[in-house]
Amino acid sequence: MARLVLKFGGTSVANIDRIRNAARHVKRELDAGHEVAVIVSAMAGVTNSLVDYCRQASNDYDSREYDAVVASGEQVTSGLMAIVLQDMGYKARSWQGWQIPLNTNDVHGAARIQAIDGARLIEAMSGGEVAVVAGFQGIAPGWRIATLGRGGSDTSAVAVAAAIKADRCDIYTDVDGVYTTDPRIVPKARRLEKVAFEEMLEMASLGAKVLQVRSVELAMQYKVRTFVRSSFDDPDKVGVDARGNPPGTLICDEDEIVEAEVVTGIAFSKDEAQISLRRVADKPGVAAAVFGSLAAENINVDMIIQITSPDGSTTDITFTVPAIDHDRAIKVLEQTRGEIGHFGIESSTDVVKVSVIGMGMRSHAGVAAEAFRALASKGINIRAITTSEIKISVLIDAAYTELAVRTLHSAYGLDKH
Amino acid sequence: MARLVLKFGGTSVANIDRIRNAARHVKRELDAGHEVAVIVSAMAGVTNSLVDYCRQASNDYDSREYDAVVASGEQVTSGLMAIVLQDMGYKARSWQGWQIPLNTNDVHGAARIQAIDGARLIEAMSGGEVAVVAGFQGIAPGWRIATLGRGGSDTSAVAVAAAIKADRCDIYTDVDGVYTTDPRIVPKARRLEKVAFEEMLEMASLGAKVLQVRSVELAMQYKVRTFVRSSFDDPDKVGVDARGNPPGTLICDEDEIVEAEVVTGIAFSKDEAQISLRRVADKPGVAAAVFGSLAAENINVDMIIQITSPDGSTTDITFTVPAIDHDRAIKVLEQTRGEIGHFGIESSTDVVKVSVIGMGMRSHAGVAAEAFRALASKGINIRAITTSEIKISVLIDAAYTELAVRTLHSAYGLDKH
Repeated sequence: MARLVLKFGGTSVANIDRIRNAARHVKRELDAGHEVAVIVSAMAGVTNSLVDYCRQASNDYDSREYDAVVASGEQVTSGLMAIVLQDMGYKARSWQGWQIPLNTNDVHGAARIQAIDGARLIEAMSGGEVAVVAGFQGIAPGWRIATLGRGGSDTSAVAVAAAIKADRCDIYTDVDGVYTTDPRIVPKARRLEKVAFEEMLEMASLGAKVLQVRSVELAMQYKVRTFVRSSFDDPDKVGVDARGNPPGTLICDEDEIVEAEVVTGIAFSKDEAQISLRRVADKPGVAAAVFGSLAAENINVDMIIQITSPDGSTTDITFTVPAIDHDRAIKVLEQTRGEIGHFGIESSTDVVKVSVIGMGMRSHAGVAAEAFRALASKGINIRAITTSEIKISVLIDAAYTELAVRTLHSAYGLDKH
Repeated sequence: MARLVLKFGGTSVANIDRIRNAARHVKRELDAGHEVAVIVSAMAGVTNSLVDYCRQASNDYDSREYDAVVASGEQVTSGLMAIVLQDMGYKARSWQGWQIPLNTNDVHGAARIQAIDGARLIEAMSGGEVAVVAGFQGIAPGWRIATLGRGGSDTSAVAVAAAIKADRCDIYTDVDGVYTTDPRIVPKARRLEKVAFEEMLEMASLGAKVLQVRSVELAMQYKVRTFVRSSFDDPDKVGVDARGNPPGTLICDEDEIVEAEVVTGIAFSKDEAQISLRRVADKPGVAAAVFGSLAAENINVDMIIQITSPDGSTTDITFTVPAIDHDRAIKVLEQTRGEIGHFGIESSTDVVKVSVIGMGMRSHAGVAAEAFRALASKGINIRAITTSEIKISVLIDAAYTELAVRTLHSAYGLDKH
């Protein structure tokens, strides 16, 4: 007997028929003798409607009231899932954030989980009852309803799994696992059987939209084995997907992965903007003024390149920011001209960051060189580079996205056999 | 300065524009220096959709989960109303049943309020904040969400008004007050300026659908002055309706009504069924067997007439039950044949109960005789009669409903001058 968390996203609970289908996955685990907690999102489209109401009500709505409004979506699904499970003959009840309690901080609209008391859930589950938890929501100081921000139900699921010491957290979604890269771009992309937490974190933060970043961080922190699979698999077939393969991808500790690949996947992110500052006076304090002013506005700077002119009098600084912060960043930079003197500003959102990710990279030399060689062979110009222990990222023109991803996918031997 | 409760029903908060209009009524009271609590229903149509989801999920849904699902409708409106009020520059926050707390018993789906702790609401209001309370919902033992049954937001409003010792509870609805009778049937019906609690209770329970019966009971018990008015009146005009009259109807203690009318109104209810038992053996225990078996099935019996045959051997018993209980009642009665011997059963749902209501009736003789005379003059046959201190009810053929109501309305001088 194991203790499992099963999480179903909005498309998997979009109507009563889908909820019933999701419940059949729960049934399979219950019939196998497992204890089950279910985490549900709002029915597809509901959260958007509720957010829209808030926007109609005010351009500058109180995020505490926004939370009270939008958290209702998950409340509805949790009650309906409990009813459907009962209708199938199982004991079940819904749990709202405040009933557990699932405590968050007071950053309404994007709250972070601070503590989950798993005692009541464990007690209910050990009595044979399915605990159906409303995802995405918790209770903030002052007994106000809080939400975790978009996609927060993944985070709820992993956090609840940690709190109740679950053996595994199964994320049922509309994709059937984590792939070596986006299969829409590279048809030869393979589904990964296992991915290390660290790798998944890089993939999630780099635009593979399978799991919310925060949920992967939590899974890594609490070593919650997290299994991503499709809610549209036949619920009655244990351990196989529609094609007869083991379904889904397990995100786990690297110890569980017997022989790590050098490169696990190729990720890319189009949500980048490149900004270049031209002919900036090359004097002390310039970088501090530029990046300090951006930091003060909560604009995250990623890749940074600085090239000093041959005579040493001026310097060119190139860096990237999230595309949504582009306009704000330009405004902030224009204001620093008074401080550090005149300089030119060029920018482009027509760029993409492509990343090569793999735990095995740590013990293999020449992985970066291989990427540069492969891209050069296709005539793809690299605008900027960043690396970490398990990742190499390059910034290139957006027009080359597909070519670059396919080239790297092939170069590292990730294509299907 | 007064402390006021303003309650808005589903049609008054059907969309953001309507919520904004409702908020202008709140604004008027705030600007006059009053402390305000607002009770809101779910946006029109929302509760029905949520109920429909529950029915799709199971034919026999758990009422605790039903409550979690449907209570979300009021949660949404409370948050949106708070946002709209803030957008107009006022301090406001939403309150769910569990946050107040508003404690109910555990009869989920139709829970009764047991206690309301008004302390937090009073504290917030005395700090200048509008308390926007989600109507219809509370918290049952075991920290489960409970709802008060359909129309329960009126009850929430009156109960909160009692708990915070409000000076008045204003019920904003889609009608502009309580009328001497249904204006759709009698165009000459007049809006009443004041109605005594006892009279309103009779009107509410007899089918005048302005207020939920339970809310009037509570208002009477706690002497909550309750003012029924239209949410579509111009919010900026104080104390007048669209025609320049004082808006609405005050439901209050009879002491506030200087000179009570003998008859205040004519109510009618089509939700009645008449059942006649023919040739029942006239022996001790028959009535106990008949009415005991109906009571055991929670079927309320209203009017009862018994006529013994000339030779005294058999008796005919006629009575009424709510129309929705008709089929169950017949089934129960057929089962009693084994106990008390054979008898014939006739029944009809094609009947209507028309009632004449007025506090002044207590001190005036001949009020009932006037009703019988007036109906007889129009050839309307009376099938059964019940009376109380302030009410005379007659059961007649449904076909005569309009004629009977108009005749009585005119007979007691209720037509507009």
